[in-house]
Amino acid sequence: MMNTENKDTNELTSKVGRYEFFAMPFHCDFNDRLMIGHLGNYMLNAADFHSRDRGFGFDYLFAIDRAWVLSRVSIEVLEMPKAYDKFYIETWVESAMKYFTRRNFRVVSLDGSTVYAYGRSIWAMINTKTRHPENILDVREGKIMDYIETNKLCDMEDVSRVIIKNDVEKVRTIGTYYSDLDINGHVNSVKYIEHILDLFPLSLYSDKKIKRLDIAYVAEAHCGDDLNFYVAKENEANLIKVTRNSGDEEVEVCRGRLIFV
Amino acid sequence: MMNTENKDTNELTSKVGRYEFFAMPFHCDFNDRLMIGHLGNYMLNAADFHSRDRGFGFDYLFAIDRAWVLSRVSIEVLEMPKAYDKFYIETWVESAMKYFTRRNFRVVSLDGSTVYAYGRSIWAMINTKTRHPENILDVREGKIMDYIETNKLCDMEDVSRVIIKNDVEKVRTIGTYYSDLDINGHVNSVKYIEHILDLFPLSLYSDKKIKRLDIAYVAEAHCGDDLNFYVAKENEANLIKVTRNSGDEEVEVCRGRLIFV
Repeated sequence: MMNTENKDTNELTSKVGRYEFFAMPFHCDFNDRLMIGHLGNYMLNAADFHSRDRGFGFDYLFAIDRAWVLSRVSIEVLEMPKAYDKFYIETWVESAMKYFTRRNFRVVSLDGSTVYAYGRSIWAMINTKTRHPENILDVREGKIMDYIETNKLCDMEDVSRVIIKNDVEKVRTIGTYYSDLDINGHVNSVKYIEHILDLFPLSLYSDKKIKRLDIAYVAEAHCGDDLNFYVAKENEANLIKVTRNSGDEEVEVCRGRLIFV
Repeated sequence: MMNTENKDTNELTSKVGRYEFFAMPFHCDFNDRLMIGHLGNYMLNAADFHSRDRGFGFDYLFAIDRAWVLSRVSIEVLEMPKAYDKFYIETWVESAMKYFTRRNFRVVSLDGSTVYAYGRSIWAMINTKTRHPENILDVREGKIMDYIETNKLCDMEDVSRVIIKNDVEKVRTIGTYYSDLDINGHVNSVKYIEHILDLFPLSLYSDKKIKRLDIAYVAEAHCGDDLNFYVAKENEANLIKVTRNSGDEEVEVCRGRLIFV
């Protein structure tokens, strides 16, 4: 495992939120390790706590017809927590601009000795009535700038643009149902991760470990949409494109990259 | 909402375990309420904590080639927690016999003023090598009998035998994949609940609420099994039968009953 401890950069400040979680045994796979979709879910919860605590939570935004929209998320796994392991998810905002903010994550054991994972994410803000992007800096008079933390180490490569060449193979089409939906009635960001993981054979999960996952969310899908999953292989990476059927056409809803080692 | 508070019967004793959870927003549906599958998951976690704390956890049992197997679970919902609600899940063993033990649940707000749900469950113990039932009272010389709690109120009808007449309609066949599996590599008890919920149209979840769910687990399914879902209607109840394909035959793996109000 990499040792990325660094007292200077990992100090807790009020800009950094730190929330305790544990690997629920029924969220672990047959290797006794937390499934990356559930880790993603815990990270989104930590993000939500952090923004709520600072006045930018979903509930406040909802009241002013705004909502955060997750645009991209990347998770780099060093060692996945085992069932019952307790850990902190630390999260902080690295930058904020008019239309995008970058939020980072560090998943670390309670005693700080083991870094389990890092995460990076990019969020937009939309107007819930028009569905158009809104200026993040207009909310609470730009107060988000008070929370920018640039010194804390997020020791992973930046979120990457997932570029997919045309020679992809359609490997599965699935329907979407009640359990796929989030609070807003859209297909849940974490469910896409589950559906993507499910494209790969079980033997891959016995023989290898997930090293990195990148997802870019392109458009929303709704209950009843049929989702098509395409896979391409590029060196060590598995590239995934997800579309929904819209009349005779297909509209891209998300794309991902999954690397096993 | 029913008021089932009763100081005498709801006192906490060492026989009763009490664990704090909260409704993770990404575990809530488009009504902003915790999905019953996730509540089931939290209950199973509470059960696991309670049995571990008393020397009967999965990890101890694993070392002596034993495992708990969930045979039935019933959940009666009074009012589903909303996103961010904190609550306790209380759990206790109501009875233990040679081959079965009954475990109950009560889901209650931190201040005790709101009972969200009750649950009942029946567990068997198997030998992990032979997959045959084992005598629960042989483990730790019958120590489980020290923890039987018969005074605490579980204010719901008993787990019910789900009886399905033959006129069921096959409504869906799905494959099983990596995310469907639990730590043991079998299809996760909670995933059956999700798949069952997904059989019903979204409009039902807008117009009505789940009042009660009963599931009986009959046989195990594995990754790669195709699962067939059959539904029948009987008065207010939706009856569900799930089978897996085994050669030319179908083997029943679980059955359920779902009541909306």
